Amino acid sequence: MKLKRSSRLIDMTGYLLQHPHQIVSLSYFSDRYASAKSSISEDLGIVKDNFESQGIGRLETIAGASGGVKYIPFMKRDDAEAFLRLLSEQLSQSDRLLPGGYLYMTDILGQPSYINEIGRMIASVYSNHSIDVVMTMETKGIPLAFAAASQLNVPVIIVRRSIKVTEGSTVSINYVSGSSKRIQTMVLPRRSLTPGSRVLIIDDFMKAGGTMKGMANLLKEFDAEVAGMAVLVETKSEEPKLVDNYLSLLKLSMTEQEEQFIIEQGNYFQYYEC
Amino acid sequence: MKLKRSSRLIDMTGYLLQHPHQIVSLSYFSDRYASAKSSISEDLGIVKDNFESQGIGRLETIAGASGGVKYIPFMKRDDAEAFLRLLSEQLSQSDRLLPGGYLYMTDILGQPSYINEIGRMIASVYSNHSIDVVMTMETKGIPLAFAAASQLNVPVIIVRRSIKVTEGSTVSINYVSGSSKRIQTMVLPRRSLTPGSRVLIIDDFMKAGGTMKGMANLLKEFDAEVAGMAVLVETKSEEPKLVDNYLSLLKLSMTEQEEQFIIEQGNYFQYYEC
Repeated sequence: MKLKRSSRLIDMTGYLLQHPHQIVSLSYFSDRYASAKSSISEDLGIVKDNFESQGIGRLETIAGASGGVKYIPFMKRDDAEAFLRLLSEQLSQSDRLLPGGYLYMTDILGQPSYINEIGRMIASVYSNHSIDVVMTMETKGIPLAFAAASQLNVPVIIVRRSIKVTEGSTVSINYVSGSSKRIQTMVLPRRSLTPGSRVLIIDDFMKAGGTMKGMANLLKEFDAEVAGMAVLVETKSEEPKLVDNYLSLLKLSMTEQEEQFIIEQGNYFQYYEC
Repeated sequence: MKLKRSSRLIDMTGYLLQHPHQIVSLSYFSDRYASAKSSISEDLGIVKDNFESQGIGRLETIAGASGGVKYIPFMKRDDAEAFLRLLSEQLSQSDRLLPGGYLYMTDILGQPSYINEIGRMIASVYSNHSIDVVMTMETKGIPLAFAAASQLNVPVIIVRRSIKVTEGSTVSINYVSGSSKRIQTMVLPRRSLTPGSRVLIIDDFMKAGGTMKGMANLLKEFDAEVAGMAVLVETKSEEPKLVDNYLSLLKLSMTEQEEQFIIEQGNYFQYYEC
């Protein structure tokens, strides 16, 4: 069915937003809308200008026979800053402080709208880092991992704390939690990673970084590679960290007696490139 | 900045897709695009026709002073059937069979594109059931729960198997797993649910339904209500189930010796209304 330009623009926008980081050929759209490639090209020009001016993302043009366009989700710096301010405010409520220097974030981590924005922020930084897989440790990092992976169009693998019958054969390692010094176990299904994969590790909270380091070590068992590490909140107190080169959206500082805390911006904008 | 119709349509589409189940007033769009409400009304008419003909969802018009439009994600029956066929094929690969009558689904459950489609299918059924919260049990149901909740614009609460320091004060119950007959524990943060909430329970896999029943019982402790139950895969063998009125996308049947299995369509279309 031949569609008018207005219809094509609406459908194209929907299609591109739902297929990030995928090359869509001009022929695909040309067939889908029974329209000439020249019209499709013009449409894409309009979509591109709007995505960029409205801060939805970028539209890359790939030339050649297998060419087409690729939508790269990307959050504008202003939007990222505004969102981090909102998140800081939410997390600064005084009744969030829990014993042991933890912060109650369960409600925030349960809001898909926040989670999707956090995912978009992380995906913006790693959009041109050739990520193959996003990895996280159960439980609270899972929504963040999926939100980022969804924008990067890559699968997620979830590290478990113990062996599960539903995972088939597994590879496990022991690691020492950086803050509690306890020995813990990490398990990953044997068939979950192919050698050489470039892995983005994501978690919700990082104290000394023991879990992050454990995940990085687990990757070695699969001959896979750390392509990046990102956390929502890191704590300021426990330093130096056991890992380097991690991105953090927010930083939590605690008073000596763990009675008061401050939430600041993390190192996000050190990694952010326009 | 005054925008042209083509730009408005692109931005509107993006905005609506990212704000499902939210009333957006005409004034909001009128201010956003510095355009007359009459033009915005026409734009929305075009968007509505296209969303409906392309199977992206519905656009409801809310009349009156606080009126506007609401985007309701909805999957067309043809698309839902095609997706279920694809999923069945993927899950029918013979090397997925695990000891104990389980199916290896970890890879499928790690693909955001599948997860988002499953979420859209579940959200389509419950789109007019006044859902307040989606609930799931850690670990594997979490991505599905977030995908559905994201489309329904409601928060997710995650039931844990043990008490965590990061959750604050908690409510826990014991329950008997329907298939293994083991006594297990479920924990939920005390501040996670308000009385009277209508809860959609989502999980990845259901054998006898003990976990589902446990979650329903846990809701009673919060004076909350089961508004629906949905699983990706139910097993055919263990019947009758401990719960009624659950929706399933797929059904798994196993031979006596658990050497072969068949994946069929679940009861999804009994719940689906056009």
